[in-house]
Amino acid sequence: MALTPTPADKFTFGLWTIGWQAADPFGSATRGPLGAIEAIHKLAELGAYGMTFHDNDLFPFEATEAERRAAIDALKAACDETGMTIPMITTNTFSHPVFKDGGVTSNDRAVRRFTIRKILRNIDLAAELGASTFVMWGGREGAEYDFSKDIRVALERYREAANLFGQYVIDQGYDIKFAIEPKPNEPRGDILLPTVGHAMAFINTLDHPELVGLNPEVGHEQMAGLNFTAGIAQALDHGKLFHIDLNGQRGIKYDQDLVFGHGDLINAFSLVDLLENGGPGGGKAYTGPRHFDYKPSRTEDIDGVWESAKANMRMYLLLKERATAFRADPDVQEAIAATRQHELAQTTLGDGESVADLVADSSAYEDFDAEAYFDGKGFGFVKLQQLAVEHLMGAR
Amino acid sequence: MALTPTPADKFTFGLWTIGWQAADPFGSATRGPLGAIEAIHKLAELGAYGMTFHDNDLFPFEATEAERRAAIDALKAACDETGMTIPMITTNTFSHPVFKDGGVTSNDRAVRRFTIRKILRNIDLAAELGASTFVMWGGREGAEYDFSKDIRVALERYREAANLFGQYVIDQGYDIKFAIEPKPNEPRGDILLPTVGHAMAFINTLDHPELVGLNPEVGHEQMAGLNFTAGIAQALDHGKLFHIDLNGQRGIKYDQDLVFGHGDLINAFSLVDLLENGGPGGGKAYTGPRHFDYKPSRTEDIDGVWESAKANMRMYLLLKERATAFRADPDVQEAIAATRQHELAQTTLGDGESVADLVADSSAYEDFDAEAYFDGKGFGFVKLQQLAVEHLMGAR
Amino acid sequence: MALTPTPADKFTFGLWTIGWQAADPFGSATRGPLGAIEAIHKLAELGAYGMTFHDNDLFPFEATEAERRAAIDALKAACDETGMTIPMITTNTFSHPVFKDGGVTSNDRAVRRFTIRKILRNIDLAAELGASTFVMWGGREGAEYDFSKDIRVALERYREAANLFGQYVIDQGYDIKFAIEPKPNEPRGDILLPTVGHAMAFINTLDHPELVGLNPEVGHEQMAGLNFTAGIAQALDHGKLFHIDLNGQRGIKYDQDLVFGHGDLINAFSLVDLLENGGPGGGKAYTGPRHFDYKPSRTEDIDGVWESAKANMRMYLLLKERATAFRADPDVQEAIAATRQHELAQTTLGDGESVADLVADSSAYEDFDAEAYFDGKGFGFVKLQQLAVEHLMGAR
Amino acid sequence: MALTPTPADKFTFGLWTIGWQAADPFGSATRGPLGAIEAIHKLAELGAYGMTFHDNDLFPFEATEAERRAAIDALKAACDETGMTIPMITTNTFSHPVFKDGGVTSNDRAVRRFTIRKILRNIDLAAELGASTFVMWGGREGAEYDFSKDIRVALERYREAANLFGQYVIDQGYDIKFAIEPKPNEPRGDILLPTVGHAMAFINTLDHPELVGLNPEVGHEQMAGLNFTAGIAQALDHGKLFHIDLNGQRGIKYDQDLVFGHGDLINAFSLVDLLENGGPGGGKAYTGPRHFDYKPSRTEDIDGVWESAKANMRMYLLLKERATAFRADPDVQEAIAATRQHELAQTTLGDGESVADLVADSSAYEDFDAEAYFDGKGFGFVKLQQLAVEHLMGAR
Repeated sequence: MALTPTPADKFTFGLWTIGWQAADPFGSATRGPLGAIEAIHKLAELGAYGMTFHDNDLFPFEATEAERRAAIDALKAACDETGMTIPMITTNTFSHPVFKDGGVTSNDRAVRRFTIRKILRNIDLAAELGASTFVMWGGREGAEYDFSKDIRVALERYREAANLFGQYVIDQGYDIKFAIEPKPNEPRGDILLPTVGHAMAFINTLDHPELVGLNPEVGHEQMAGLNFTAGIAQALDHGKLFHIDLNGQRGIKYDQDLVFGHGDLINAFSLVDLLENGGPGGGKAYTGPRHFDYKPSRTEDIDGVWESAKANMRMYLLLKERATAFRADPDVQEAIAATRQHELAQTTLGDGESVADLVADSSAYEDFDAEAYFDGKGFGFVKLQQLAVEHLMGAR
Repeated sequence: MALTPTPADKFTFGLWTIGWQAADPFGSATRGPLGAIEAIHKLAELGAYGMTFHDNDLFPFEATEAERRAAIDALKAACDETGMTIPMITTNTFSHPVFKDGGVTSNDRAVRRFTIRKILRNIDLAAELGASTFVMWGGREGAEYDFSKDIRVALERYREAANLFGQYVIDQGYDIKFAIEPKPNEPRGDILLPTVGHAMAFINTLDHPELVGLNPEVGHEQMAGLNFTAGIAQALDHGKLFHIDLNGQRGIKYDQDLVFGHGDLINAFSLVDLLENGGPGGGKAYTGPRHFDYKPSRTEDIDGVWESAKANMRMYLLLKERATAFRADPDVQEAIAATRQHELAQTTLGDGESVADLVADSSAYEDFDAEAYFDGKGFGFVKLQQLAVEHLMGAR
Repeated sequence: MALTPTPADKFTFGLWTIGWQAADPFGSATRGPLGAIEAIHKLAELGAYGMTFHDNDLFPFEATEAERRAAIDALKAACDETGMTIPMITTNTFSHPVFKDGGVTSNDRAVRRFTIRKILRNIDLAAELGASTFVMWGGREGAEYDFSKDIRVALERYREAANLFGQYVIDQGYDIKFAIEPKPNEPRGDILLPTVGHAMAFINTLDHPELVGLNPEVGHEQMAGLNFTAGIAQALDHGKLFHIDLNGQRGIKYDQDLVFGHGDLINAFSLVDLLENGGPGGGKAYTGPRHFDYKPSRTEDIDGVWESAKANMRMYLLLKERATAFRADPDVQEAIAATRQHELAQTTLGDGESVADLVADSSAYEDFDAEAYFDGKGFGFVKLQQLAVEHLMGAR
Repeated sequence: MALTPTPADKFTFGLWTIGWQAADPFGSATRGPLGAIEAIHKLAELGAYGMTFHDNDLFPFEATEAERRAAIDALKAACDETGMTIPMITTNTFSHPVFKDGGVTSNDRAVRRFTIRKILRNIDLAAELGASTFVMWGGREGAEYDFSKDIRVALERYREAANLFGQYVIDQGYDIKFAIEPKPNEPRGDILLPTVGHAMAFINTLDHPELVGLNPEVGHEQMAGLNFTAGIAQALDHGKLFHIDLNGQRGIKYDQDLVFGHGDLINAFSLVDLLENGGPGGGKAYTGPRHFDYKPSRTEDIDGVWESAKANMRMYLLLKERATAFRADPDVQEAIAATRQHELAQTTLGDGESVADLVADSSAYEDFDAEAYFDGKGFGFVKLQQLAVEHLMGAR
């Protein structure tokens, strides 16, 4: 059944999501720890495709080499047993006090050196586990105060680190790409590379931009009041959608990490439509994991945790089903045509038309009837939007 | 006197700023029109360096060729008379109903062709007037609804237009560069290229990225809750600060266009410090016009308009004076050193150090004392911030 | 059919909504004027219950007495003809330059006197038309700058005016109540009485608080990041929901005035559920007009205007249908019970229990097992939310 | 010297502020615990007037009666020794898992009973310590999801609890008043009584509204994009400013709790001006403690903690000095007069003037020259704002 998750749906979860113990800035944990092995078994049972983690989700910061190895080996065994994959891993460079001014852009050089070592080690682990995407969320790279650091210098250090990691995977022959996860603020007052735009612009300044893309997160862009679907579309245009973090956010406030679709539902609908139907010939525009990076609310016990995990997948599948029906509806096709979207797909200049030709075309300017757009030539956007919302509501 | 504006300060104003008649979404104009010639004379008298405009600030959309020419010639004469410059011009592709779904990305192809012609014509005017910067604010390029257009297709059309304009200035031999002005929303629900980051990423996909940079505006980035100084620093890092729009905004809300410094004063201070003292050897990091793109409040009559124009320049000069004193204060230098910013300026790897060398350096990882950062090794950021605010307040 | 609007649904529209000519801060009108008589006939045809207006929607600010009377009489005739009602009217105290610093709180005393006269005249008109609600949106009552006025003094003047209006309807024997419409900002930088909370607190300081309630608007509260449904619930608790403005808003930004439901869809769902099913015995919690205060997007022509009018009503009816099904679903009832909402409906102290009794009850404190709430006693909120969203999506 | 804090300045600090160990949602503590006794001695040394605390800042949730008593007695001894006061205390009803759905409005009745007991016990402690203000911050009273609870029912429970506490202090003869501290969100998605307005409206529904006022916090109102000074002015108008929390916030985002003045500096200036100079005859409008509720940034060690404590007091004193000079400047007085603020202080109706008199006054309406406000009769707000900012910057 279309609403029952299977590995073919490529749903993945961070170990830190279902495993979140629910401490927040004003309260202590409400849940005990969830072991990685238990988590992966349960996720497999629910129909997930894979699990992801930060190094210190799997083993503590202080772990000895033996402890680290034991945790890794147990995870690999569990993967073998369940068929689950580890398509992405990432590094915790934000929790420990040592990272209090960031990792790769800390003003403290020794911290930066330590951070690079920690990340390199984790890249080796990614390679060992067959993870093809290595996420970098620089949540502590930033500042509360404008005079705490020269942002240009910090970006130079960020670039130095990113170039070093890129060269490392090349030198090691690893089949790994990097995905930067932007966020505007929290836990720092202002974080470096605050939006998908800033991160893509930065990537273009790297030695190997082809190795680095994005891991955009729904809530992070929405925390800046930005349209997530539009941001993903630009990332696709630029060839930079390497991974994606799905969750929910209710407006500009602290990072809520709700279940996917439990925030801005209409935007979640257009996102799934883009991912599933926006590709060539109406197929998938993105084929990688649908990764949930959310937090089961602090009010929930372990049953609520698993309900929330299921809710994420069900929301995605429901939205996908609605998007398919939306695209198939002849009324929708007619309404789309009325908005003249097919004209947007045409180049503005004709085939072989030069600028001189355009300048010579008096119909384009001198004889163009601009006044016809007053009280006429409406675009029919509201009607199409209403159709979209009715499909979202299963009302057609 | 340092607080009296002179042309050397390079202060410029949009004709649409002092000339704004103060109609807003809920009210009609409270002021009559201000002629371009009167404006340029008055601005010259106040110590400005130049004036900028949209084509339809100088002559109406419906102007005949003769009317257009008369307005241009009168402006040129006024420039000659006053010594004022026209360093930048821009095109109105947002006011007339024809642009209701945008200009270069309207779903309506005829509108796009018309828009390109209107812009080409204005590029010729820029060349005629010696303007070296051509600003493109695509305020109508966007949508209210996620299904109104495929953003990827819209970006293709945006690119087609930008490439065409770039080729045009090359072909015509014009010494003109383009500056894209990002804005997240208003008047559209979501505008394409919503932040400095998104615009820089887009520029990298153009045929001639070297011809295109940014014209960031204080309020536009702050409408997305972003740190303007940090955004400008990234633009400088990427070599894309081609022009700048100074004004004031009080948080995430409608576009306020207040006087520069009358919004987030501390951020205005760090911005001026960056522009004036952030360059090589502590000189200017940006040498172009300090362009005010603001609106004299609707409550003001013409006296208030000129008070507000003066206030912009005075704010800049005051902040510059404060920034100079801040940088010269030995206590500040000491506090900056305590934040270890000099270490951030050092590369993380040593001169000639390879990744292998770093991996071999046990002091960097195995023997590194991460625990020393608990209850120690503070960064002293608050003390420095307090010093900065005291300098801003003239209290040291 | 449940999805076809009828007067029993009590849908009303402002004349300024469908009649909006679509001028915005950056563009001129894209549509011509729509006459009140045409509007009321068309709305009647679509199934509306009534129409509302500002004085200057019906006749211009400069109208002569004869012009004003002619417009009023024509409207009354059209009401008679169509069966449409005028349940609410309001006064334009914001568009004309005279109101540039507000109406009843302008620093200019002559403006305040003029404003009061204009409003009194319009109260008489309300009485003449049988409108029982008189809305006061003080959109210009506010400031851009903290030093422009002493807010306490401005509130005194606001109170003086509100008291005067209250006494006037008492003296005239009018059956009219007032409804204040809060808004946080736009067109002023900060507006007095910015939220439903501030307005209710202010009302409590009036001579006749019973005469004054609220007209909350979806988008206005959401522009402050507030939960509209929660605000309406508090207004109901305080007996102050006198009228309601329905529309859509996509987050904290300029006032969008989208179609109801085209913004935060989930919050629109909970709102309709509250209004329709939150009353005693599961009936209506609010029985007044469902008033749409929205703007047909500037991209639309007159066909789009009427499509958008229909969309508002259809959204409400769809959400009502979904809310009915939600409440009727036994799985939902079970999930609600699991959240212990029935316990919230019980008083915290038992019937007849005194504070001393509570203090003497060791089970409440000394023997209470607080630790049971760690890793247990979850509230099941996510599961219920998922059920709600599935009902909203017509997926159950 | 005016910039050296003394007890006469009435500066107070929460023990949880300087004692914050700097754990945040993404990182563990960076500082060790700070004992209450050490804290109070150090604060006394810095010139503070008093210290405040939550019960569980002084002794842990799990403390035995003996441990609790020992901590209280030690605190009292330290107060005696240092001369420090405890003018306010408050209760932690948000950190422990038991409060995961709130305290007095938890859906779980047993939790509500426990919470009331915990608060009653702390009211006794307030009385014992001579604290005259008892703050109630209901940070966990709220929801993430609209269907988690009926907000009206939750408000009934809130009211039940507030009434019970009020009756308790009456019955016990305590000289204690309550101050509700509003916050829009974080840690809950939406918190009950989200703004000063909502809280004041709620207070009016209590049995003893005279016992309950507000403890507004700078950052909390600014997290909703509201003007803090304007909110305080309304609270003063309504007689509800019982206490105040000073800190800094940079726009709509997570709760930053920066040093006072390190956020919106201009708004901090107008606030201090209101508090210090807004009273009768230009005296203090509020005479209670100036309470700092901030967090020393996580980047700081203990030296930075004390620097930040000093910075709060110095900012207040600097702003007070600037406000005094602002009010004393004849140019400012002239500019204020030009804004016609003296007219706002006049009643709109004349002494003894009736509504009938106003209606009969043709100069007020029929002969009023509204057109004079077009291109004339400006309010001079920008000029005054510029003067204010110059005083803030010490530039006059």
